[in-house]
Amino acid sequence: MTTQDLVQQIRMKKSFLCIGLDTDLEKIPPHLLQEEDPIFEFNKAIIDATNHLCVAYKPNIAFYEAYGIKGWKSLQRTIDYLNERYPEQFTIADAKRGDIGNTSARYANAFFEDLNFDSITIAPYMGKDSVEPFLSFENKHTILLALTSNVGAFDFQTKKINGIELYKEVLRTSKTYKGAHNLMYVVGATKSEYLTEIREIIPNNFLLVPGVGAQGGSLEVVCEHGITPDIGLLVNSSRGIIYASTGTDFAKAAANKASDLQVQMQKELESRNLL
Amino acid sequence: MTTQDLVQQIRMKKSFLCIGLDTDLEKIPPHLLQEEDPIFEFNKAIIDATNHLCVAYKPNIAFYEAYGIKGWKSLQRTIDYLNERYPEQFTIADAKRGDIGNTSARYANAFFEDLNFDSITIAPYMGKDSVEPFLSFENKHTILLALTSNVGAFDFQTKKINGIELYKEVLRTSKTYKGAHNLMYVVGATKSEYLTEIREIIPNNFLLVPGVGAQGGSLEVVCEHGITPDIGLLVNSSRGIIYASTGTDFAKAAANKASDLQVQMQKELESRNLL
Repeated sequence: MTTQDLVQQIRMKKSFLCIGLDTDLEKIPPHLLQEEDPIFEFNKAIIDATNHLCVAYKPNIAFYEAYGIKGWKSLQRTIDYLNERYPEQFTIADAKRGDIGNTSARYANAFFEDLNFDSITIAPYMGKDSVEPFLSFENKHTILLALTSNVGAFDFQTKKINGIELYKEVLRTSKTYKGAHNLMYVVGATKSEYLTEIREIIPNNFLLVPGVGAQGGSLEVVCEHGITPDIGLLVNSSRGIIYASTGTDFAKAAANKASDLQVQMQKELESRNLL
Repeated sequence: MTTQDLVQQIRMKKSFLCIGLDTDLEKIPPHLLQEEDPIFEFNKAIIDATNHLCVAYKPNIAFYEAYGIKGWKSLQRTIDYLNERYPEQFTIADAKRGDIGNTSARYANAFFEDLNFDSITIAPYMGKDSVEPFLSFENKHTILLALTSNVGAFDFQTKKINGIELYKEVLRTSKTYKGAHNLMYVVGATKSEYLTEIREIIPNNFLLVPGVGAQGGSLEVVCEHGITPDIGLLVNSSRGIIYASTGTDFAKAAANKASDLQVQMQKELESRNLL
């Protein structure tokens, strides 16, 4: 999917919501456990109920890997279902991979070609040759960790290198990588006060913003400091939406939560004349 | 496996060799492609031919993920085979994972419990709460990326934070994590001149050293600066061993290459009276 296609979807749906599919057998409604593939059935119901309210889905790969081969089958079925039924959705493999060049090329093949995701999250620690194999795919997007929303972010990401924080060094350095126009960045909403400075370094790139809601970030503040003329934001919510209910009404409850966020997003977009 | 068990194996075999299973269908002997599971058959033959010469095996997870569900089946069969037939081998899931706490806990379950690996490689960018879920498993080992052997290592790892390189900051900070006694570190052999300083920060932890051979590192220099009274080194070789031949003699050729390294390692150990 091109970035322009994504922007068009956002304008059409008046939403820049991404729904995280952190699907956990211990948290999904118990009545689904009798299905042959409860994870897929849960995801399918959530997707069918919410797709008109969001522009992206983000399966968290760890949750599928945790179930071994069965989990990978559920992941494969989920991404296949999205690509077949809702090809307009932007799909994110939340994998946080990153390795030496020939190994990163393998991960790129796995997620961009075999599974056919539109994008993948990548950790920057190993630098240029660990990121560039992902950037060489046109109309695929590499979402680099910059400033994450967890407490551990302060261990290294906010430490200063020659007076500039590591996460800013990641932004600045990655801009020089070959294929950098395919970069997006993870920036946690819990640190939205940093967004103004981030936008000085990367005025236009899309940001994937986790941490709104459950982790305490505010949508209004994120928009105030992070939005661009082409919106440039994907705000993710996972647990707050998909686990809204553990009853048979779980998909409807998820849609209600997603709708609440879509309404807020529409307000933010309209108040800035971005639609 | 406990660290002491690993040290005992090293002394018994006079080897601290780790063999990397970067198994690639395009590089394995063509006659194996007619097998139902060529990746597993290749790994099995390599393991059967080399296990007396090494103390660890390191499947590179990307190479398995690249083949989707089939690849995960091959990985599962490989680790099961190792655990059943050669339980004395230290097994490393070279996965370079790392995510927020609840997600890292998922990865820890996947690799330590379901697949039953002894250890996993982890990226440090997301800090404390992304690493500690792995450290909470006793007699399982978390191998944190410190200084990698690729060119991209110079993008961030060697940059200075308040006068100290990021990779040293990773060493220093991670020592304070809960369960830090379960930490090992990745340190590339191509930068063995840094080893003396690394040993000042972590005098005893095991180091997993890639980059000897194919990537240009010297075993002698690594030992000179990195070895400890309990050896404290696992030196990895992947392509240089497993792809020594593409003929029907591939396993024997791999054993010959592994033997060359074992002989060198024995010499290094004997010359330092470490056996």
